[in-house]
Amino acid sequence: MSNAPVLDRKADFPGLVTAGGKPWHYLDTAASAQKPLEVIDAMSRALGSDYATVHRGVYNRSAQMTLGYEAARKRVADFIGAKSENEIVFVRGATEGINLVGQTWGAANIGAGDRIMLSTLEHHSNIVPWQMLAERVGAQIDVCPLTEDGLIDLDWLEANLTERHKLVALAHVSNVLGSVLGAKRAAKAAHAVGAKLLLDGCQAAPRMRLAMDKLDCDFYVFSGHKLYGPTGIGVLWAREELLDAMPPWHGGGAMIDKVSFEKTTYAPPPQRFEAGTPMITEAIALHAAIDYVDALGMERLFEHESDLATKARAALRDTNKVTLFGPEKSAGIVSFALDGVHPHDLGTILDEEDVAIRAGHHCAQPLMEHLGVSATARASFGLYNDESDIDALMRGIERTLRIFG
Amino acid sequence: MSNAPVLDRKADFPGLVTAGGKPWHYLDTAASAQKPLEVIDAMSRALGSDYATVHRGVYNRSAQMTLGYEAARKRVADFIGAKSENEIVFVRGATEGINLVGQTWGAANIGAGDRIMLSTLEHHSNIVPWQMLAERVGAQIDVCPLTEDGLIDLDWLEANLTERHKLVALAHVSNVLGSVLGAKRAAKAAHAVGAKLLLDGCQAAPRMRLAMDKLDCDFYVFSGHKLYGPTGIGVLWAREELLDAMPPWHGGGAMIDKVSFEKTTYAPPPQRFEAGTPMITEAIALHAAIDYVDALGMERLFEHESDLATKARAALRDTNKVTLFGPEKSAGIVSFALDGVHPHDLGTILDEEDVAIRAGHHCAQPLMEHLGVSATARASFGLYNDESDIDALMRGIERTLRIFG
Repeated sequence: MSNAPVLDRKADFPGLVTAGGKPWHYLDTAASAQKPLEVIDAMSRALGSDYATVHRGVYNRSAQMTLGYEAARKRVADFIGAKSENEIVFVRGATEGINLVGQTWGAANIGAGDRIMLSTLEHHSNIVPWQMLAERVGAQIDVCPLTEDGLIDLDWLEANLTERHKLVALAHVSNVLGSVLGAKRAAKAAHAVGAKLLLDGCQAAPRMRLAMDKLDCDFYVFSGHKLYGPTGIGVLWAREELLDAMPPWHGGGAMIDKVSFEKTTYAPPPQRFEAGTPMITEAIALHAAIDYVDALGMERLFEHESDLATKARAALRDTNKVTLFGPEKSAGIVSFALDGVHPHDLGTILDEEDVAIRAGHHCAQPLMEHLGVSATARASFGLYNDESDIDALMRGIERTLRIFG
Repeated sequence: MSNAPVLDRKADFPGLVTAGGKPWHYLDTAASAQKPLEVIDAMSRALGSDYATVHRGVYNRSAQMTLGYEAARKRVADFIGAKSENEIVFVRGATEGINLVGQTWGAANIGAGDRIMLSTLEHHSNIVPWQMLAERVGAQIDVCPLTEDGLIDLDWLEANLTERHKLVALAHVSNVLGSVLGAKRAAKAAHAVGAKLLLDGCQAAPRMRLAMDKLDCDFYVFSGHKLYGPTGIGVLWAREELLDAMPPWHGGGAMIDKVSFEKTTYAPPPQRFEAGTPMITEAIALHAAIDYVDALGMERLFEHESDLATKARAALRDTNKVTLFGPEKSAGIVSFALDGVHPHDLGTILDEEDVAIRAGHHCAQPLMEHLGVSATARASFGLYNDESDIDALMRGIERTLRIFG
C-alpha cells in the first residue's frame, strides 16, 4: 500500500467537470493546470471591485492595487526561496523569461566562439532562444545526452563542460519524461568552468519545494498557468547582481528613470524589465494560486503526483502492450506508446471516455527523435488527480486495444 | 444643450463603487479602463468550466478553447478593419507591440544613418524602444513639434521628412492632451518619402472607430486593459506582407515549424510572433470587451467622451484658476494645472471626495518639458462617465481652492 497523501481537492476546481456534468479525468496538467476557485475569485475581484492601475495613481485604489501587485512579487520570492523580491521579474511565461535572459544577459555575455550547453530533453522554449542567440553572436550549442532511463547525463556534462561554455540551460523536470535533474550537481559543474546555470522550472515549480539559495542556479523561470494560476504571467528569477548588470530589454513606461530625447536613464531591476502596464490582475491571481498550493504543501504534492505516476506506470506495464519512456521515478509525468496505436488515435478515443491526455511531440522534437518516435502519449498528474483518473485512463486504453485489436 | 448620447452604463461596472458603497468618480480611464461584468464573467468561465490550453490538445475541450482563442483574433481583426486575422498578433500590451516592431522589423530595416521620426507628445513607450533601436543600429531620431494648441504639426512633418526616414511613429490620440492625429495625412507624408507609419492607438482604440484599410498606416498597436478588457493582453496589427517578411522575435513552442539542433524553421505569422502558451483567457475576455463596446457603437463613445471633455474644459475655465493644456476638441482627455496647487495635492484631495484623476508626467516627460511643467492633472473620460462625474470633480476643485486659498 502506498503512503502517499490523499489530497481530495477535485471540488475546488470547476474545470474538472464535463459540459454534461460528469467527472472529467484531466491528465494534461503538464500542459496547463486547472484553476481552483480561489484563483478565479481573486481574478474576478481584481478585475472588478478592486480594479485600478498600479504604480501611477495618486488615489487610494491605485495605491492598494500597487500594494497587491508588489505583495504578489514578495509572495513569489518567499515561495521559491529568493533572497529578495527584487530578484523577481514578472514575465508572460517561462518562454518569455528565457528569451529575456538570452536577449539581455546572453547578448552581453556570450560572444563569438563561446558555447551554450543544453540537453536532449529540452522543451523548444529552452532550445530556440539559444539557437537564435547563437546565430546572432556566433556561438555554438552543445547537447548533453541522456542516460538510458532518461535523465540528463551529469557524468557526461561534467566531462564535457569547458571554459568556453558560458551558459548551461536545462529543464529542472522534463515535461515529457518527468525526470528530475540533479540540479545542485549541474550547478557545481557549470560553476566549475565559470558558466551560469539556467533552469527551466515549468514542471518543477508546480511539483517541488523550490529554494533558490540551495539550488545554487543563476536563472530560474516558470509559468503561472502551470502552477494553477492564470495565463499571461510567469516568473524570471535571477541573482540580484546578475539582474543589476543586465541591460534593459523592452523600452516603455515604468522601466525608465528619466526620459528625454537627448538621454534616457533606466530604473533598477525588477522594474527595468517590466515596461508598460504589467499583468496586474494576473499577478494577484498567481498570488492566490501560490497560497493554495503552499497551504497543501509542495512536499505532499510531489509525493502525491510521483505516487500516481508510479501507479500509472505499473498499470500500463501490466497491459503488456505499452512501451514506457523515462525513469521509473517520475515527478508525475508518464510518456508511453501503445503498441500499434498512434498516440493521436489513443487521445481521441480517451476523449470520448472523458479522459484528457496529451498526444504529440510536447514541444520537444529533439527528444522525440532520440526516443525514435514522432509522438508519445502523455499522462501528467496534478494535485487534483487520484486513482479514479488512472482507472478511467486504463478503461480507455482497454477499449482502445479492443478497437485496434 | 448637447446632443451627445447618454450611455448610462455605470451599473455594468463593479469597479465604479467605493469600498464604502458610494459612487466612485473614476476619471482615469486613459490610464486603464474599468471592466464590465461581461468581461469579468468571460474571464471566470475561461479560467473555470471552459479551461484548457490551446493549439495542442487532442481532446475536445482544448479544441474548443483554441476556437475561442482564434475567434478572439478574428473579432479583433473585424473590429479594427484588418484585412485578415493573420494580421493580428496578440502581445502583452501596446508597449510590447512597439518593442516587437522595433526589434524585428526595425532591426532588419533601419540601419546606420537612417532616421526615425517621432513627435513631442509621444508616450515613453513610443520613444524609448526607438532610442534603444537607434543606439543599436546607429540611426538618428527626429522630433516633430506641436502646433500651439497641442496637435502634431503636420505641416512641419511634411516639410521635414526625408528619404533617410524609414519610420514615422506617432500617437493616434495623445494620452495627455487628447489631441487626435490627422492620421491619413501623416500616412501620406510618410509614404511619400518611403517611410512606414506606426500608430500608437492606446487612446484611440477605446474611443474611435478604427479602419486599418482607411487609415493607411503600416503598424498599429493598442492595449486590452484600456479597451475595457483585461490586463496582460494587447494587439499588434501590421500589414500581412510586413509580418511575413519580419524575422522571429521570441523563440519557443508554438512559433516553430520544426525544431532540431541542426536547424529550426519557423511558423508563418501570426504564430511566428506568439512563442509559448499565449494569453488564452485574456484573449477571450478581450473578445467580450470588444463585443461590449461595439454594441454601444464606437462613434457614440467618441461623441460621448468628446462632449464630456468639452464640458469639463468649460467648467474648469469658469473657475478662472486653471490653465488648460491641449486642443479645445479633445477625444475625452483633459490636462490642466490649478493655480498654486501641485497636481499631486489636487489628486490627493480629490481622492477624499471619491474622485480619481491622474497627476504626474503621464509617461510623457518630453511633453511635460515642452509644456513647461513637471506634471499635469488629468481627467480622462470613459464610456461610463457622465456629468455627475464632472460635477464631483468641480466640487473637489472648489474645495481644493478653499484649502489652498
